[in-house]
Amino acid sequence: MNARIMQQDNKVLKRFFSLDHQTYTDGALPVKTKELLGLVASMVLRCDDCIKYHLGTCADLGVNTDEIYEVFSIANLVGGSICIPHTRRAAEYWDELIVEKTP
Amino acid sequence: MNARIMQQDNKVLKRFFSLDHQTYTDGALPVKTKELLGLVASMVLRCDDCIKYHLGTCADLGVNTDEIYEVFSIANLVGGSICIPHTRRAAEYWDELIVEKTP
Amino acid sequence: MNARIMQQDNKVLKRFFSLDHQTYTDGALPVKTKELLGLVASMVLRCDDCIKYHLGTCADLGVNTDEIYEVFSIANLVGGSICIPHTRRAAEYWDELIVEKTP
Amino acid sequence: MNARIMQQDNKVLKRFFSLDHQTYTDGALPVKTKELLGLVASMVLRCDDCIKYHLGTCADLGVNTDEIYEVFSIANLVGGSICIPHTRRAAEYWDELIVEKTP
Amino acid sequence: MNARIMQQDNKVLKRFFSLDHQTYTDGALPVKTKELLGLVASMVLRCDDCIKYHLGTCADLGVNTDEIYEVFSIANLVGGSICIPHTRRAAEYWDELIVEKTP
Amino acid sequence: MNARIMQQDNKVLKRFFSLDHQTYTDGALPVKTKELLGLVASMVLRCDDCIKYHLGTCADLGVNTDEIYEVFSIANLVGGSICIPHTRRAAEYWDELIVEKTP
Repeated sequence: MNARIMQQDNKVLKRFFSLDHQTYTDGALPVKTKELLGLVASMVLRCDDCIKYHLGTCADLGVNTDEIYEVFSIANLVGGSICIPHTRRAAEYWDELIVEKTP
Repeated sequence: MNARIMQQDNKVLKRFFSLDHQTYTDGALPVKTKELLGLVASMVLRCDDCIKYHLGTCADLGVNTDEIYEVFSIANLVGGSICIPHTRRAAEYWDELIVEKTP
Repeated sequence: MNARIMQQDNKVLKRFFSLDHQTYTDGALPVKTKELLGLVASMVLRCDDCIKYHLGTCADLGVNTDEIYEVFSIANLVGGSICIPHTRRAAEYWDELIVEKTP
Repeated sequence: MNARIMQQDNKVLKRFFSLDHQTYTDGALPVKTKELLGLVASMVLRCDDCIKYHLGTCADLGVNTDEIYEVFSIANLVGGSICIPHTRRAAEYWDELIVEKTP
Repeated sequence: MNARIMQQDNKVLKRFFSLDHQTYTDGALPVKTKELLGLVASMVLRCDDCIKYHLGTCADLGVNTDEIYEVFSIANLVGGSICIPHTRRAAEYWDELIVEKTP
Repeated sequence: MNARIMQQDNKVLKRFFSLDHQTYTDGALPVKTKELLGLVASMVLRCDDCIKYHLGTCADLGVNTDEIYEVFSIANLVGGSICIPHTRRAAEYWDELIVEKTP
């Protein structure tokens, strides 16, 4: 649907989507840290699609499972048990991503 | 399920559901503006069912696609990228509504 | 997925999950009241999985339908119409639970 | 400010404020339980004014400190560490209320 | 603090702040409608500073008190009683703005 | 107030507060990254006290201003313009912390 949304030519929305991509590029903090930040923010705000997106990028960047679970633990502590169902779905999706990457 | 809920005869819940309908009637602000207000509130609170409901009423009221996308843009700016997945689903549903209405 | 999550041996996450269970045991307040508290918190935070979990425990504890609807009414008043779709799904699930329990 | 808001004669707002009062009256659940439900909902949604309001009513109803702390514990578990600052302020306000009531 | 934040030269933050301003300019929807949308979004997300900002712009644009209270009513219905304390502060601030503008 | 809360001897609350401290210790991810994760989570959930706490720890750990502003930028993008007032207060507090540390 991103292409459809872009096609409508709403300048604010286009710039916002573009800014969203720029946010997770290398800078004072490495991309990996930024993706972990995006992941924990998505978890405490409880957005499954956003969680999946950042998990995908984390897998591409070689983040390991122990690191991912530490992000899960911070998200649950800060955001509360309301994050548990999202953690379950995130853990399941992460396992799928890891299996795909295993040669 | 609304009929089922009404049947239980919980007075507070019945009055609340009734009040919900009264909220979006003509007054100092026209119905169309109120529906746009209901839409943007639903988007920043990220409730897909509520978004669909208000998109449906907006389509009935003749709101056009550029206007809807301006609501989307405000919702994304105020509510953040966490609203993007809801915007994608909203854009898809809006296109379906518009196709249905095209003679 | 809980077993999978436990298997990863993240101490914070394990303790948090364990603490989650301890929270709803008898104490100064009876278990039934605590489950109603867990239910209303899940409704205003709009977590369908959490709502289902607490509805299940409430059914096991013999909470009746009028009591459940009073929790629904408080959740809707405090949390707003954004809780209505969750209330519909909760009402539907509750009816299923009650039918199962009817001899 | 409630009197000022009522004076404006917005029917939806007046009915909503009135409904808010009806919500916490005796019914299938006793008033005390409903106030505890209002309290935990206010805590997980992190509204200090709402928390104070329900703590005041709880003190009037004779809820004891152990019971209040069990509500605090559920709110923290469900809502996460983000509720800790609100819990601190709530604990402080509760102590003031209790001192006032001690003969 | 905006000048201080700009001075740090974080590109994403600068573009985001700039985009925030572009969002509320004339387009398919008039500025007045957009400010009402910004106001209702700020109320359901319960940000007092954001509410004040949009109330200020609404006062400048000649929005009248009945219109503002209709936005308040939608915010309370959608967002729930948790918005009441914010509505009280908003009503008080609005009265101050109106007095200032009265010749 | 933490001492007062501990004194009440609510086991769940005590364990939760203790777990909160364990969360930000070294592990698969370094403490610095964990504090940045705690900061961004606090920002998108808009808790000023939590933001101050993590900024304080970040200053102790030697996080620099450019890194902090990258966390601010991610928080604003993910959480939206509703985070701007919290960002202003965070930026002001950060400057105070840095001045204190300058010899």
